[in-house]
Amino acid sequence: MRTILRVNMSDLSIKKEPLPEKWANYGGRALTDALVFTEVPADADPLGPDNKLVIAPGLLGGTTAPNGGRLSVGAKSPLTGGIKESNSGGQVAHALGKIGIAAIVVEGKPADPAARYVLEIDPAGEAKLSRHDELAGLGNYATVDALKKDWADSGRYSTMTNGPAGEMLLSGAGIAVSDPHGYPNRFAGRGGLGAVMGSKNLKAVVIDDAGLSSIEHADKDAFNAAVKKFAAALREHPVSGTGLPTYGTNVLANIINEAGGYPTRNFSSGQFEGVDGISGETMREITLERGGNVKHGCHTGCVIQCSRYYVHEDGSYWTKGPEYESAWSLGADCGISDMDVVAALDRECGDLGIDTIEMGATLAVYMESGKLAFGDGEGALHVLEEIREGTDLGKIIGSGAEATGKAFGVTRIPVVKHQAMPAYDPRPIQGIGVTYATSTQGADHTAGYSITANVLAVGGTVDPLKSEGQAALSQGLQIATGMLDSLGLCIFVAFPVLDIPAAFDAIGEMVTAHTGQTWGADELMKLGRETLTYERLFNAHAGFTAADDRLPAYMYTEKLPPHNVVFTVTDEELDAVFDFVAETAAEMGIS
Amino acid sequence: MRTILRVNMSDLSIKKEPLPEKWANYGGRALTDALVFTEVPADADPLGPDNKLVIAPGLLGGTTAPNGGRLSVGAKSPLTGGIKESNSGGQVAHALGKIGIAAIVVEGKPADPAARYVLEIDPAGEAKLSRHDELAGLGNYATVDALKKDWADSGRYSTMTNGPAGEMLLSGAGIAVSDPHGYPNRFAGRGGLGAVMGSKNLKAVVIDDAGLSSIEHADKDAFNAAVKKFAAALREHPVSGTGLPTYGTNVLANIINEAGGYPTRNFSSGQFEGVDGISGETMREITLERGGNVKHGCHTGCVIQCSRYYVHEDGSYWTKGPEYESAWSLGADCGISDMDVVAALDRECGDLGIDTIEMGATLAVYMESGKLAFGDGEGALHVLEEIREGTDLGKIIGSGAEATGKAFGVTRIPVVKHQAMPAYDPRPIQGIGVTYATSTQGADHTAGYSITANVLAVGGTVDPLKSEGQAALSQGLQIATGMLDSLGLCIFVAFPVLDIPAAFDAIGEMVTAHTGQTWGADELMKLGRETLTYERLFNAHAGFTAADDRLPAYMYTEKLPPHNVVFTVTDEELDAVFDFVAETAAEMGIS
Repeated sequence: MRTILRVNMSDLSIKKEPLPEKWANYGGRALTDALVFTEVPADADPLGPDNKLVIAPGLLGGTTAPNGGRLSVGAKSPLTGGIKESNSGGQVAHALGKIGIAAIVVEGKPADPAARYVLEIDPAGEAKLSRHDELAGLGNYATVDALKKDWADSGRYSTMTNGPAGEMLLSGAGIAVSDPHGYPNRFAGRGGLGAVMGSKNLKAVVIDDAGLSSIEHADKDAFNAAVKKFAAALREHPVSGTGLPTYGTNVLANIINEAGGYPTRNFSSGQFEGVDGISGETMREITLERGGNVKHGCHTGCVIQCSRYYVHEDGSYWTKGPEYESAWSLGADCGISDMDVVAALDRECGDLGIDTIEMGATLAVYMESGKLAFGDGEGALHVLEEIREGTDLGKIIGSGAEATGKAFGVTRIPVVKHQAMPAYDPRPIQGIGVTYATSTQGADHTAGYSITANVLAVGGTVDPLKSEGQAALSQGLQIATGMLDSLGLCIFVAFPVLDIPAAFDAIGEMVTAHTGQTWGADELMKLGRETLTYERLFNAHAGFTAADDRLPAYMYTEKLPPHNVVFTVTDEELDAVFDFVAETAAEMGIS
Repeated sequence: MRTILRVNMSDLSIKKEPLPEKWANYGGRALTDALVFTEVPADADPLGPDNKLVIAPGLLGGTTAPNGGRLSVGAKSPLTGGIKESNSGGQVAHALGKIGIAAIVVEGKPADPAARYVLEIDPAGEAKLSRHDELAGLGNYATVDALKKDWADSGRYSTMTNGPAGEMLLSGAGIAVSDPHGYPNRFAGRGGLGAVMGSKNLKAVVIDDAGLSSIEHADKDAFNAAVKKFAAALREHPVSGTGLPTYGTNVLANIINEAGGYPTRNFSSGQFEGVDGISGETMREITLERGGNVKHGCHTGCVIQCSRYYVHEDGSYWTKGPEYESAWSLGADCGISDMDVVAALDRECGDLGIDTIEMGATLAVYMESGKLAFGDGEGALHVLEEIREGTDLGKIIGSGAEATGKAFGVTRIPVVKHQAMPAYDPRPIQGIGVTYATSTQGADHTAGYSITANVLAVGGTVDPLKSEGQAALSQGLQIATGMLDSLGLCIFVAFPVLDIPAAFDAIGEMVTAHTGQTWGADELMKLGRETLTYERLFNAHAGFTAADDRLPAYMYTEKLPPHNVVFTVTDEELDAVFDFVAETAAEMGIS
């Protein structure tokens, strides 16, 4: 029986509760959503005592399911004002899964704002809170170093830590999750959840799963057979089997630039003349030259292995190999074409604990205001350092792209629901525009990754420059993603799943063998729909309407070179993306 | 035939159009609303080319109707994201009315952001735009001094000017309107309309009405008789006839403090121990001592005469006598009890062109963050000066209370629809809470001034500490205010109107005699409902829902001393305030 660990920061009490039967098949995003929907008032102050930070491994967390160790972190978002599920790699999901914890619910708020707490969870699932005010203000790297002193002897442990940005309650702050080597370089980055953790004065969670092996299944042999089948498909598909492991996610830089959808200098062009300096190919070359690691998983059990480290000239660890979105945001969107500069910015964001996508977009908006030149990497680094110093500029920048645009009178602000757009311009890649516009999460590529059919010819093709078929494409992907995020599967499994029937079948077979219940396509898609239904209803209660499901006005009128196109998907098409919610809500008995 | 003056800032063209017949009975707020509703897309960027700044005198502008010279300025608000009608005294409304201009519509956006334009309108209604880049960055007082050089010979003229805050596109910026002596000290202050004017690069409007007398009426004798009757009622009522003229609006300081609803130190108490230092009585005493003016109208034809000047020790003009809301926001809400300090802050806001209510609330939120001590007037003045200097802190502060709270991690932010609450705490004065919550304008006391029945026993009494009757009270007042704002009548006429039947009758008689059509209670209230209906529909199109019609969550749980009460009006009661909109919209044929 999986448990919910309820951590009350008002009275510092901890309770273990059985996971309610009605949510027995929920994990990850479905479970954080169900808990936030049920327990957090839609009008709660995101940084007040009524908000809750919910941490949940996917349903397959703690198993050997390939790429099954994704972690969901949920709350009401201080950035979007809506529900948030921020999804992270790293080792925490498997650790919690093995311990048998379905979710940690952090609630309330301590009386003393100066206090800093560490939550420790041992292999038996026993938890305690201890006060460690000496950690206040430490960056994520210094924090894990300090934690190491206390836990290095305990064997295998993983961490979630909150950097200075979250402690300062800045809306751009994310939560760091440790990778298999203990580096705090995976992130529940989006939507300001670091600020929610900061509002609870929770500096770190340390999870010790030493001695535990993967959890039991209803049918072990069937599970192992399905795992084998799934892993084979992951290795077989050219994107998950070759492209991603070789170059990492940043393999996309040249591809998206070639497609004319690589947002450059605050979304003023779709191609960057300096892409070569920050591409996945260049990153690999530099890293190999310096003797860095160019291929590993962000969690154990990963078959794809798209993670890597970026190293200093002497070969020592600098930061994770910047993901495609980070290299883009801190690179092309700021007119920066030097990989070492991007790495320095990525490291600073990682140590501060702040979302790289939001920060790059924010720096670009700041550059557009004329306060800093596009391409000025040193200046950009200095601006990020101001977040740590707590200067007034740091407060503005740390609050994200929209806050920065408003402060400095910039009107071209690429946000939806107050959250910055990632590395794909929605004008020449209209399917991703539908996802940005309609996602419950604010502008978010991972919510429905249309790049598959729009650019990569995965799961069919949909012409990216036209409006036809984009809404249906995004709807299908959003539902499937809701399902994958709930199982704890990495969304990159979507590449084989969309192209290789056996891969999709294997997911159902894994979940069936694990739970002992029948999971086919219908059940899987139902899980995805239910997940999105919680989110849409929460947002509706919080006041979101169709008007929030739109791109910024300028993207309907300002043509983006080189294709010179605007976003043309109609409001009616956007409004139809969630046409299933009313029926699903009725089936679920929620409103 | 009244005309619309359409000023296109994209191509610098000016057109005169007849006022459409369907709006022949509209003026002021009804007309700015109708124009914004009809011409501005609800999803327009408030600072982009699609927003329009609409300036309209009330229907009685240019007549001798007592207190009939109020001005409406409308647009989509950069602060609230909804429709905005910001209402100002000063001399402009009568000038436009006499010239026969029903509305000025400023649209488009100049190509050169460095350009500064002045719009001149002569007595014949001819208008021209001229470029005056030398005015860039000047405060409102220096701007009117500079304008004086060009227009002092032309006889009688009035001005609207935009200070540095508006030029910097800050969401707290307002537009200054000159008083009968040419001081730029009346304001269309709320909702960031100075930023809209700034986005159009319009630095000033100069209106010359030399030689024009009050406009014609359908029945002159009947109009004059109604004017006499109305003026008598204004003089007869104790509030408009005695309280306001003697002490100005700040007569309320002691009254509201006594009632326990005087928000102190960022709405943490309802009584301020230092009220005596900033009360209307003290202001009057100081001003008389120094030889200042303690009684005049903010526009010609004002019978109430609640305006005054506050003077330096040598008797020279310093600023307008701070209104109750300004003395409160820059005083009690910041824990400041020195009238000269309040005057210095008021002057700085006036010269910068920034809303005193928003700024006081913002300084108080900033003080709560610990960055500045409550009561530190010198520090507060320095912070305001940073707006002019364009520092990073200035950008945050100038963006208002919510932006400041978010930047500095303050969660007790007293705003509704992103706009700061004025000088009445909604917990012990629940009727005003209903108005704050539900008003289309964001938190705004003038939208439905329940202080009448809640505190002053005007128009009956409704116990301010209880929820009963507040929604109905607010609804009636909001409709009546929509009507008064459309006619161009000062809302202080509501005191006699609510208590003296002849005063209400006189309004209908004035409008009837002026227009030649029959205006009774039904027609007047219909005008009010139509006004609010435009606003509610615009806001709905812009994405506002019932969730936006709520007070901040903490006001439902945090008890305010000395009464130790929370806000208890239910959501259902709030949602019923605009129950007439669907029917009115159907009658109007709009949706």
